[in-house]
Amino acid sequence: MTSISPPPECLFKPMNFPHKVLMGPGPSNCPPRVLGANALPLLGHMHPEFLLIMDEVKAGIKYIFQTNNEWTVCVSGSGHAAMETACLNLLEPGDTALVGINGFWGERFADMVDRQGIDVKTMYRPMGEVFTFDEIEEALKKHKPTLLFLTHGESSGSTLQPLEGVGTLCHKYNCLLLVDSVAACGGVPMFMDKWEIDALYTGSQKVLSSPPGASPISFSDRAKEKVKKRVTRVRSFNFDMNHLANYWGCDGDVRRYHHTSPISTIYAIREGLARLAEQGLEESWKVHKQCAELLQEGLEKIGLELLVKNKSSRNPCVTAVKVPDGVDWKAVTEYAMKTYRVEISGGLGALVGKVWRIGVMGYNCTPDNVSLVLRALDEGLKTAGYSKL
Amino acid sequence: MTSISPPPECLFKPMNFPHKVLMGPGPSNCPPRVLGANALPLLGHMHPEFLLIMDEVKAGIKYIFQTNNEWTVCVSGSGHAAMETACLNLLEPGDTALVGINGFWGERFADMVDRQGIDVKTMYRPMGEVFTFDEIEEALKKHKPTLLFLTHGESSGSTLQPLEGVGTLCHKYNCLLLVDSVAACGGVPMFMDKWEIDALYTGSQKVLSSPPGASPISFSDRAKEKVKKRVTRVRSFNFDMNHLANYWGCDGDVRRYHHTSPISTIYAIREGLARLAEQGLEESWKVHKQCAELLQEGLEKIGLELLVKNKSSRNPCVTAVKVPDGVDWKAVTEYAMKTYRVEISGGLGALVGKVWRIGVMGYNCTPDNVSLVLRALDEGLKTAGYSKL
Repeated sequence: MTSISPPPECLFKPMNFPHKVLMGPGPSNCPPRVLGANALPLLGHMHPEFLLIMDEVKAGIKYIFQTNNEWTVCVSGSGHAAMETACLNLLEPGDTALVGINGFWGERFADMVDRQGIDVKTMYRPMGEVFTFDEIEEALKKHKPTLLFLTHGESSGSTLQPLEGVGTLCHKYNCLLLVDSVAACGGVPMFMDKWEIDALYTGSQKVLSSPPGASPISFSDRAKEKVKKRVTRVRSFNFDMNHLANYWGCDGDVRRYHHTSPISTIYAIREGLARLAEQGLEESWKVHKQCAELLQEGLEKIGLELLVKNKSSRNPCVTAVKVPDGVDWKAVTEYAMKTYRVEISGGLGALVGKVWRIGVMGYNCTPDNVSLVLRALDEGLKTAGYSKL
Repeated sequence: MTSISPPPECLFKPMNFPHKVLMGPGPSNCPPRVLGANALPLLGHMHPEFLLIMDEVKAGIKYIFQTNNEWTVCVSGSGHAAMETACLNLLEPGDTALVGINGFWGERFADMVDRQGIDVKTMYRPMGEVFTFDEIEEALKKHKPTLLFLTHGESSGSTLQPLEGVGTLCHKYNCLLLVDSVAACGGVPMFMDKWEIDALYTGSQKVLSSPPGASPISFSDRAKEKVKKRVTRVRSFNFDMNHLANYWGCDGDVRRYHHTSPISTIYAIREGLARLAEQGLEESWKVHKQCAELLQEGLEKIGLELLVKNKSSRNPCVTAVKVPDGVDWKAVTEYAMKTYRVEISGGLGALVGKVWRIGVMGYNCTPDNVSLVLRALDEGLKTAGYSKL
C-alpha cells in the first residue's frame, strides 16, 4: 500500500468570518431570499423542475434586458465568462473588433480578442469620460469593424456610456454592437431591442444581488446569424452559444446535456431576478438614481471631488471619487472595514491609489447604506489627517 | 419615456420542487454542512478572509489528489470547464494530442482539441473496457503525441482506467499525461505525484458532494513548464492557468484580481473537502468499494447484467447495468422517481437506451441508499413487466 499524505489541519476547523456591508463595485450583499435559495437541495441539471427554473431565469433576463431575443441564457461563470462567450462566438479570424477603451473593461476585451489572433482596433477616452456619437462614427468609418465593443457602466471610471442610437449607427456600417453592462443593468434604463444592441451581458453579483457564477447574456437575431454563418468552429465547448442556446431551450429542439449547470447559483439568480421583478425596473432605476445623488452630494459635502465631471455621464451604480493629495487611501478603506465592516474599494487599472470606488446596487441600494458609507469615509478621512479646505 | 415590457408572472411565484435522492452519475446530494455553507453571506473575492478559504480549498485538493504541485487551483466552472482549461493551456498549434476514447469523455476532449485546430489522434476501446499498457505504448510510439488524455472514471461506460505506471511510460516518450477523474477521485485511490500524472481534474458534485460550479485541477511542474514555454497565448482569459495560479496564491506573487470567483460555491466545496478530510481518504475508498460491491451483487441478484465484465475495471462510483431486452428503460427510471424520488440515470452517448447508470458517491455512498436504489429498480422492472429468467 502506498503511504497517504494526511489531511490538512485547516479543514478540521470551521469557517469563521464577519458579515460585511459590501459597498464596492461588486459583489453586493445578497438578500435572505437569495441566500436561502442557494441552500436548497440540488436537482439534477436535466430534471424537468430544473429546466423550468432555467426558463424562469430566462424570462427574468428578457425583462431586465427588455428584449425578446430567442438566444437569451445564463453563462456558467462570472461577467468575465460572459465577455469571453461574446468574444469567442461573435468573432473569428478575418474579423475586426473595434474596442472602445475608457477604462479597465475595454482593455480586458481587447486582450481577449488578441488571444484569438483576431484583429483589434481601439479608440480611447480617458477614464471618467464617455464616447461621443461623432467619434464612434468616425472610428466605424475608419476601421470598418465587424464588431464594436462598448462598456455601458464602466466600474473602473464610473461612467455610463449613452447607447441610444449607437446600435442603429453600427448597423449602418454593417457592424454588430456588443455591450458590457455588468455594472449597470437593472440599475439604469436598458432597452436592448429598441436600442438595437446585438449582444449584451451582465453579472449576477451587482444589481441582481445574487452570488457570482452565472451571467445573463443575450444575442439578437443579427448576432445569432453571425454565429450560424461562422466558417471556423467556436474555440470553446463551454462557451459555444449553439450548445448553450439548446440547453437553455432557445432553439425549439429537445434540450440536450451540454455541461452541468451551477444549479444552486441558478436558484439564487432566479431569486435575484424575482426580487427585481417585484420591485419593477422603473422603481429600481429611480432608487438607484436617488441613492447615487444622495451619495454624490454627500461626497462633495465632505469636500471630495468626483472623477466624472459631467453629471449625465455618471453611472449611478458605481461612483469613483478622488483621493485627496497626501491622504493614504488604504488607511481610509481599512478604517471603514475595521470600524464599520463596510467595504469601500480602491481604484482599478490606471486609477489604483487615485480614487475610491463606491457601489450602491440592488439590495444594498438604500439611503441607510449611503449614510453608512459616507460616515465611514468621513471618519476614515479625519483619522487619516484630512481636513476639508 | 420608452414603454417597458412588464415583469414575467412566473417570477412572482415561489420555487417549489421535491427533495430527491440523486443516485445518477452526478450531481450527488449535498450534506447539510455544504448547503449551509452555500447560504453564508458573501465576502469580496479579494478579501483576506476569502483568500484564506481559497487556501484551505487548495490544501484539500492537494490532499485528495495526493500531490504537492504548486499549481493547484479550482476552475470556476463544472468538470467541462476544467477539461477545457487543461486543453487550452497544455496544447497549442504544432502539438499533437493522443486521446483515449472508451466513452463519452474522450470524445468530448477530442472535440475540444479539434476546436483549436490542433492535431488529434485517437485510440479506441469499446465502452465498458479500459486501455492496456501495451496498446498505450504502441500508440505513443506511433503518434509521438505531446499529450495523452485518459479518463480515470468513465461515467458513461463505468470503467476505471488503471493509471499506475502510465505517467512513467508517457515521460519515456516525452509526452504529458492528462487525466479526467471527475467521476472517480475521492472514491478510489489516486496518487497524482507517485503516478506521475501531469494534469488532473475532478468535479465538485460527485464524491465531494458539493454543488457544481468549481472544479479542482492541478498541474505538475512538467505541465507548468509546458505552459510557461508556450509560443502562442492561451486562447482564453478565464481559463489561463498563469492568471488562475496567481489568483489562487500559487506563484508567490501578490494575488491579483483575475475574475470574480463563485464565492458561495467555493465556501461549499471547502465544506465538501472538509467532510472528506474528516472521513479520511482510506475510509472513503473503502466505503465506496463496499457500497459498489453491495450494489453490483444486488443488481445481479435481480437478474441484471453489468456492462463491465472485468471486475478490476469497474468504477465503484458509477455502475452501468444493461437494460434487458424488451424493457422500456425510461418506464423504470420514471417509476423510481415517481415512487421513491430516486434518480437512476439512462445511458450516455452510444449507450442511450441500452444501460442504466447508478452513482453511489460521497455523501450518498451508504448501504441504505444502495438498498433504496435496488428496491426502486427491482419494483420498476416488475412494473415494466420484466421477470427474471
